[in-house]
Amino acid sequence: MGKGRLEAFSDGVMAIIITIMVLELKVPHGATFAALMPLIPVFLSYILSFIYLAIYWNNHHHLLQAVRHVNGRILWANVHLLFWLSLILFVTAWMGENQFARLPVALYGTVLLFCAIAYLILTIMLIAHHGKESELAIAIGRDFKGKISLGFYVLGILLSFVNSWVACGIYAVVAAIWLIPDRRIERTLGSENLSNK
Amino acid sequence: MGKGRLEAFSDGVMAIIITIMVLELKVPHGATFAALMPLIPVFLSYILSFIYLAIYWNNHHHLLQAVRHVNGRILWANVHLLFWLSLILFVTAWMGENQFARLPVALYGTVLLFCAIAYLILTIMLIAHHGKESELAIAIGRDFKGKISLGFYVLGILLSFVNSWVACGIYAVVAAIWLIPDRRIERTLGSENLSNK
Amino acid sequence: MGKGRLEAFSDGVMAIIITIMVLELKVPHGATFAALMPLIPVFLSYILSFIYLAIYWNNHHHLLQAVRHVNGRILWANVHLLFWLSLILFVTAWMGENQFARLPVALYGTVLLFCAIAYLILTIMLIAHHGKESELAIAIGRDFKGKISLGFYVLGILLSFVNSWVACGIYAVVAAIWLIPDRRIERTLGSENLSNK
Amino acid sequence: MGKGRLEAFSDGVMAIIITIMVLELKVPHGATFAALMPLIPVFLSYILSFIYLAIYWNNHHHLLQAVRHVNGRILWANVHLLFWLSLILFVTAWMGENQFARLPVALYGTVLLFCAIAYLILTIMLIAHHGKESELAIAIGRDFKGKISLGFYVLGILLSFVNSWVACGIYAVVAAIWLIPDRRIERTLGSENLSNK
Repeated sequence: MGKGRLEAFSDGVMAIIITIMVLELKVPHGATFAALMPLIPVFLSYILSFIYLAIYWNNHHHLLQAVRHVNGRILWANVHLLFWLSLILFVTAWMGENQFARLPVALYGTVLLFCAIAYLILTIMLIAHHGKESELAIAIGRDFKGKISLGFYVLGILLSFVNSWVACGIYAVVAAIWLIPDRRIERTLGSENLSNK
Repeated sequence: MGKGRLEAFSDGVMAIIITIMVLELKVPHGATFAALMPLIPVFLSYILSFIYLAIYWNNHHHLLQAVRHVNGRILWANVHLLFWLSLILFVTAWMGENQFARLPVALYGTVLLFCAIAYLILTIMLIAHHGKESELAIAIGRDFKGKISLGFYVLGILLSFVNSWVACGIYAVVAAIWLIPDRRIERTLGSENLSNK
Repeated sequence: MGKGRLEAFSDGVMAIIITIMVLELKVPHGATFAALMPLIPVFLSYILSFIYLAIYWNNHHHLLQAVRHVNGRILWANVHLLFWLSLILFVTAWMGENQFARLPVALYGTVLLFCAIAYLILTIMLIAHHGKESELAIAIGRDFKGKISLGFYVLGILLSFVNSWVACGIYAVVAAIWLIPDRRIERTLGSENLSNK
Repeated sequence: MGKGRLEAFSDGVMAIIITIMVLELKVPHGATFAALMPLIPVFLSYILSFIYLAIYWNNHHHLLQAVRHVNGRILWANVHLLFWLSLILFVTAWMGENQFARLPVALYGTVLLFCAIAYLILTIMLIAHHGKESELAIAIGRDFKGKISLGFYVLGILLSFVNSWVACGIYAVVAAIWLIPDRRIERTLGSENLSNK
């Protein structure tokens, strides 16, 4: 089974999530700096989530490049990932509108955690389908970044009840770790022409 | 006539429906668990509809894989399906905001019924265009799951006036039946390379 | 210059317009038939506009199939068409929420008229680029349906100030004329394999 | 690394931004001309931003045509551009709803400035990746239009505090400069067949 429509559908959903998130920046009535002030936390949460969604799109892009064929279980693992990514919209808005209060920050981290778990499941399904000796499996390797992220999210969720800014700092650190694109796959596949879309 | 843009347009519409549905999860003003409570029925209806739309995308994906060419009638049968799918947005929100009251649950089932009928019509048009001896026709076969679903939806609509939770249970059972991807087509086409998008 | 991204962008914009239009069906608070009643005109205007957008997508699809290459002027003629199509969202909502009052119905027809003019301009640009002897020019021919539609829209706009329902009837008649896909192009190109997307 | 999904994702995001912007044209309650009047500034800001987004899509389309392969840094430079483009949604609505008041007009220009900087960065990254002797580098050349635009935006931002209409006039002039598609690339690549998407 081809991967073309899986990529197209995922690109569509991720493009929509990342774009309609900006609608949460509700236009203020006044035309003054003072009217913009209450939007600052919403804007900060928008930036963080924009980066996270871009990371997921980027990694998804890299991951799917190494994929040769998909099956029904992989389609569902991908839909499962998109489900959790769609909830980023909700928790971003809730966190921003409540000035990074504890419970919204904890829920934000929880959704990030489930996104990461869903991505891990997708990776596992793909390796199971391609074989442990496949280019894909070698490219992903031990997935150190993926596993350490899970730990950071749990830490962030727990710390959010102590100090929500520390939790946000941890989420930002994880984003920074991932901002570096998945060079493992890029390196392994580097010598091949993968532009045969 | 090629099927590329039919797939692209359908993917686009289905990706948008599945994603903007999350906007019905209106962000609560408070930052407490109590503020989240009223969202639980809306969230449950979101999960159910997300799964249904994913099933339709998945089955559409499988169905179109076996398609070789399309005509004007098939394009319109597809648009007709997208029309009913778009109404899932409305009935999901209405059902969720009214805590699964009887009339919204009945209307939700009615929209699901018309989606299923529209999908059936699309299937019939495709078989008429490809011939009864075509790979597509063989892959679809007697379409047992498609026909039994129609019966379940009618049952759910009728029961929704007695007990709306029983009706929702029936809708969930139909979703569970379909969660298994359409192995008939996957099996028939399994040996071929269909990744030539 | 290739036409791939022109198609992709147009599909994207048309898919978004057709889908977010359903958001104008604002979810009523009550769970009764009475609560749904005020939505009926909005729903009717939604159906009409859904059909119109599907017609434009369908005809755009047929038109672009016969296109071999595009230039900067064609890209802009296409963007100009998308601009007027995007305004269908606004006039549909305004017409529906005002129970098909005269001015909204006249403005609805005006937007349809400019969509048709924009489509005509796109057609002219394409023929100018491909030559009058091209397959495309032959396929489009004298464009009888396109020209008669312009007359009908003007008639509808004028009549909307007398009786807005008569105007809506005229808009529906034009939609019915177009519902038949553009068989001219389909016939001319019928013998070729156009699935080489 | 192929450019297919980079184009698809960018097309998706730009198509969504350009389309949901029309949702800021909030449907008025009355069905009279008087009810439409307050929408005129919002509509004017919509037209300006629609043209700007179409220019960005158009130039992005032209730019990517000359691209042969991408890397992680290019993906991020592209995401950075999409981030600033997404903010056009917010500043367009703020400017329109405040009848082109000074601060919103200045912020509008600031977002346009950052879009232009982000586009410049993307261009630099692409040239760095393809080499100064590449077809792409020759096609872009000294990028006179890109650099002069930056100056105009700064001028517009400064003048917006004196007279916001003069600032808007400057933004419109820059749009007019760019409305002419990037003929440099079109000319350089004109003899090649670039339709091999």
